[in-house]
Amino acid sequence: MKSFLDDETQVILKDPMFTLSEIAKHMGARVIGDDTIHIQGVSSFETAQKNHLTFITKPEYLNLLSTSHAAAIIVSSPLQTSKPQLVFQNPKLGFAKALELFDRPKEFKPGIDPRSWIEEHSTLDPSVTVYPFVTIRSRCNIGKNVILYPGVYVGPDVVIGDDCILFPNVTILASTQIGKRVLIHSGSIIGEDGFGYIWDGKQHYKVPQVGKVVIEDDVEIGANACIDRATTGQTHIGMGTKIDNLVQVGHNNQIGKFCILCGQVGLAGSVHIGDGSLLGGQSGVADHLKLLPGSRVAAQSGVLLELNEKEPVMGYPAVNAKQFFRMIAALKKLPDLLKTIRRLEKEVEELKRK
Amino acid sequence: MKSFLDDETQVILKDPMFTLSEIAKHMGARVIGDDTIHIQGVSSFETAQKNHLTFITKPEYLNLLSTSHAAAIIVSSPLQTSKPQLVFQNPKLGFAKALELFDRPKEFKPGIDPRSWIEEHSTLDPSVTVYPFVTIRSRCNIGKNVILYPGVYVGPDVVIGDDCILFPNVTILASTQIGKRVLIHSGSIIGEDGFGYIWDGKQHYKVPQVGKVVIEDDVEIGANACIDRATTGQTHIGMGTKIDNLVQVGHNNQIGKFCILCGQVGLAGSVHIGDGSLLGGQSGVADHLKLLPGSRVAAQSGVLLELNEKEPVMGYPAVNAKQFFRMIAALKKLPDLLKTIRRLEKEVEELKRK
Amino acid sequence: MKSFLDDETQVILKDPMFTLSEIAKHMGARVIGDDTIHIQGVSSFETAQKNHLTFITKPEYLNLLSTSHAAAIIVSSPLQTSKPQLVFQNPKLGFAKALELFDRPKEFKPGIDPRSWIEEHSTLDPSVTVYPFVTIRSRCNIGKNVILYPGVYVGPDVVIGDDCILFPNVTILASTQIGKRVLIHSGSIIGEDGFGYIWDGKQHYKVPQVGKVVIEDDVEIGANACIDRATTGQTHIGMGTKIDNLVQVGHNNQIGKFCILCGQVGLAGSVHIGDGSLLGGQSGVADHLKLLPGSRVAAQSGVLLELNEKEPVMGYPAVNAKQFFRMIAALKKLPDLLKTIRRLEKEVEELKRK
Repeated sequence: MKSFLDDETQVILKDPMFTLSEIAKHMGARVIGDDTIHIQGVSSFETAQKNHLTFITKPEYLNLLSTSHAAAIIVSSPLQTSKPQLVFQNPKLGFAKALELFDRPKEFKPGIDPRSWIEEHSTLDPSVTVYPFVTIRSRCNIGKNVILYPGVYVGPDVVIGDDCILFPNVTILASTQIGKRVLIHSGSIIGEDGFGYIWDGKQHYKVPQVGKVVIEDDVEIGANACIDRATTGQTHIGMGTKIDNLVQVGHNNQIGKFCILCGQVGLAGSVHIGDGSLLGGQSGVADHLKLLPGSRVAAQSGVLLELNEKEPVMGYPAVNAKQFFRMIAALKKLPDLLKTIRRLEKEVEELKRK
Repeated sequence: MKSFLDDETQVILKDPMFTLSEIAKHMGARVIGDDTIHIQGVSSFETAQKNHLTFITKPEYLNLLSTSHAAAIIVSSPLQTSKPQLVFQNPKLGFAKALELFDRPKEFKPGIDPRSWIEEHSTLDPSVTVYPFVTIRSRCNIGKNVILYPGVYVGPDVVIGDDCILFPNVTILASTQIGKRVLIHSGSIIGEDGFGYIWDGKQHYKVPQVGKVVIEDDVEIGANACIDRATTGQTHIGMGTKIDNLVQVGHNNQIGKFCILCGQVGLAGSVHIGDGSLLGGQSGVADHLKLLPGSRVAAQSGVLLELNEKEPVMGYPAVNAKQFFRMIAALKKLPDLLKTIRRLEKEVEELKRK
Repeated sequence: MKSFLDDETQVILKDPMFTLSEIAKHMGARVIGDDTIHIQGVSSFETAQKNHLTFITKPEYLNLLSTSHAAAIIVSSPLQTSKPQLVFQNPKLGFAKALELFDRPKEFKPGIDPRSWIEEHSTLDPSVTVYPFVTIRSRCNIGKNVILYPGVYVGPDVVIGDDCILFPNVTILASTQIGKRVLIHSGSIIGEDGFGYIWDGKQHYKVPQVGKVVIEDDVEIGANACIDRATTGQTHIGMGTKIDNLVQVGHNNQIGKFCILCGQVGLAGSVHIGDGSLLGGQSGVADHLKLLPGSRVAAQSGVLLELNEKEPVMGYPAVNAKQFFRMIAALKKLPDLLKTIRRLEKEVEELKRK
């Protein structure tokens, strides 16, 4: 079962290993201490093993430094310790950059597998990788270095920008426009019909969904997410926004730039989310609402009314989070309060009688 | 990479354009004013551009009529305006009908692509379209004009009625019965095992799921939804019911006719939903509960008890929505109320001492 | 359209029928009464028809025994009835075992369909079934009797143990390790990237997800579920745990043995769930929380804080379920309470004035 893709896969995968100096160079960090030691992994402070690199974000870790098995640490400023250090302003970011070296090697060889189906009139850059069982319908435009994994379906008139990766079994419906460096994880559906019907007296009459989905550069979309096409016009996902698994983005949503939508978030139709907003897991927003830039919605919360709230919101219906916690604290006292009031009623009754 | 499907796709897609007269004829509407003007799109009142048709549902739009860029409007009864009008009893329905003209042209040519896999003993109407990478297992019955997009899996003994469309990467498991004109959007799974186990003292022993799923005519199912097969008997979806993305329908559910299940709704096992019910996004219903015909469950609400409620319900556990709003309004006052009661306690104490 | 798989599928499927004696033998039950009667189905007490076997779990059914159409019943101890009985300690478990006889016959013939794509350096047991449109990347290890349905993608370096079944359109990403007898239903994604970013001052910088997913023996995963790979190390699913449809398991989650995660549950990152825990549908757990063994979280509830709670928890934020119900009962009285307090205030004011 030979494939054009096989040539590069005969590598024997070894556990990766780098010197501290190599890691520092990749990160753009400064080394303090022995930069020739070998690092075999990057871990959180609690789980770091011998030969691992770790990082310090919480001050309480400083006292625990001697107990850590880590061979070296990423710090924001030099510490008094015998362990080699990588000095990097944002240690958590340094952790992400160091991890890049330990990521799986990319295994693919550009080319179009003959077991894919490519309809006519599409333009594919010669650098693309199209795996078996991929469909590309008519009049598509696929940019440089795009990788389409097995089972990906690309509908007619779709544009996919340079350096995008569509993981296995992703479905992109007609006319979707995708920017550069967009990652779409397995099973996600982009551009399915929005959910719109008009009751005509006998049945739910389907409103045709003739709009499309536009996704800007550097967006990442998790697994099994759904982004509805617009009824008319566009459902729009702004630059650098990250969407987690199983998220529902309704038709005509306008999601700003650099937003974070956590797992299982659900947005009804025509929702506007301002730039830099964060929606916690399983939270939801009712149709036609606008969230200000920088909005924060707690997990599982339901935004049912226009809030104009810059502070975090929480609960159902969502309110200012501080208010929510006050309400919950009071609610916990409520059963006892009932007794107090019954008692007060009796006492007042008695006083009145006197 | 030639395909039997390519012949019809060499069309150059143009932006559609119709005269007002053509649209009126399609809608069955009456024209007032110049019916020769050209319409290039259909939009909501706020977003309508020059050469667009729009519609009026809210009275407040009447005053804004002169500010609209729209070239013509759909109205329920004639207005005093120089703009051409389409008179149609239900303007929102008229909007849906007008949009039909502006929908993407259907691009397919009936036939069975040789890159599909069709097992034996199935009956396919000659008018079906079977795209590459489609699987049809044994003993299936596929009706007229059915379209099976790439990546669709149809298990053994499945029946699919006339005019159904299964979008890419839909999975239909064994013995599922699907009526006519059913649309199933990408990534949805119909007929997977229900979730049933019995603790046998050592492990969760699997209860075989030997029933099936039956879907009546004119149902539409969104993307990445799941409809479990019954343990025994049927999971049943009534005629004309519309199910949105990422919805979970549990085993042995009996969903009535003309229901609306919004995105991410979750129904446990053996739930009955009466005809014409509406379940808001992310709402849920606990197992074995029965909802009356015409039930309305607000978004994110959780029905945990038999309600016998004709009025909308809301909250967790769901109660009559008016009661819910009263409870929430009172809850907001509760923190202050605590102070009032502390004060009352002191005052009563003092009165008693006197 | 011949296939290597066709030989065994020419069976004419008949409705199954067994004697009570055959069923008793399969279950390991004792028969009381005529064991030669023919049974054509197994049903719940309410839905049992003539020639069906049913089972009794609730005492109130005993009085209704004569009204049941069932031909025979599974009971934990012999009853005074003319109906034939199968005596089996756990009647519900007996029901599951009897149902096994009535399940669809497994239709497959081991072999590798040439329309699949198998990269190099993988080891497949000769007993595996690989259907068309399946992908197996490099260096995989696929155990005995494994069935990979159409559209399944198995990434590089994946291990799949004996007797696993991956239903259509399942995606397993690189380096995932799956134990024996694991069932993964259609559309589920295992090993996609976890959701991790660090704000670098300009954008959400992606944290590489270099870990993997490890799934122990006897796990079952529903349809369209998502299990994120770990950032580093493992996302781990313990032996015998059952996961329902549309569930989100975050990166670095450690799920214990014999847990039940109902439909649409969402777990954030680095969550620990103790052995034998039960999470109701649509419930969620915030990141880094640990749930004790045997935890019970009610449907739709949100665990936001470390609970150390052995009793069932409920609500948002989740609290002890009894406390939750007391709070809700009190909340229902709150609107009336407000009136009582206003009255008390006035009365106290009046008393003071006197």
